[in-house]
Amino acid sequence: MEFIIRRGEQQDMPSVLKLVTELAVFEKEPNAVKINVDDLISNGFKENPAFYTFVAETKSVIVGIALFYNRFSTWDGPSLHLEDLIVTEEFRGKGIGKALYNKVLEYSLEKGINRVEWVVLDWNTPAIEFYKSTGATMFEEWNICQISNKKIAQYLSN
Amino acid sequence: MEFIIRRGEQQDMPSVLKLVTELAVFEKEPNAVKINVDDLISNGFKENPAFYTFVAETKSVIVGIALFYNRFSTWDGPSLHLEDLIVTEEFRGKGIGKALYNKVLEYSLEKGINRVEWVVLDWNTPAIEFYKSTGATMFEEWNICQISNKKIAQYLSN
Repeated sequence: MEFIIRRGEQQDMPSVLKLVTELAVFEKEPNAVKINVDDLISNGFKENPAFYTFVAETKSVIVGIALFYNRFSTWDGPSLHLEDLIVTEEFRGKGIGKALYNKVLEYSLEKGINRVEWVVLDWNTPAIEFYKSTGATMFEEWNICQISNKKIAQYLSN
Repeated sequence: MEFIIRRGEQQDMPSVLKLVTELAVFEKEPNAVKINVDDLISNGFKENPAFYTFVAETKSVIVGIALFYNRFSTWDGPSLHLEDLIVTEEFRGKGIGKALYNKVLEYSLEKGINRVEWVVLDWNTPAIEFYKSTGATMFEEWNICQISNKKIAQYLSN
């Protein structure tokens, strides 16, 4: 199966949003995606982009994406966060996800970044096994906390 | 107890590193901190800083810090990541941590950011209870994955 991996451009953002939504459904959060194509373009293609993408393309159709951005660890220094690694359902099992993953890791090495980080759902065994097979370490004792701007406003007004 | 909260400056970075190291010891990872003061200055005070800090100061001594940076969620859009919230041991229980936390949340609201995210160790019950009391949500089903540049180089060379 032939596909190419290339950097994502503005005109790819509708496809990126479609795949992000497909992943949210897979993650049992079908209504979680609150951003739109304009949000992706305005944040990803400004002077200091909030994120970057690689896309997997076959016959001019985007069938997979990796979306990532810079973070900073006070243990390891500059790091890269892989926010989303998505391959559309009918194109899974063909090496596209691995090619996108490898591309992000290559990018990290090229940029002299010290580590790449991402999160995985604890029931997503195939993904976990793949990540471990590449040398990644999983941390189960850390829990993620989030507070929305709505909850922040409530909390601060008390 | 009187203290002020202000933005961290270059000259504060030795104190920031000291507190980061104190937190690593508390988190049972005493050798985890691989960065130095120069790394903090070069990454935090360049044109597009990799992170920002608030510091808590009493009698010209920095006794607490919050270190944070921008992230991008494909569900919620621009978000803020609180990498470290630290108060030195002898100054805990005096409201300094809460003041730093509140300052980061205020900053997030002012900037129109949609959410703030951070991680907490699952055995750090006082911290978890505090965060929940402010309206934060905890996600236990997500696991963090990391791969170091050394492991990346090994994996890609295979």
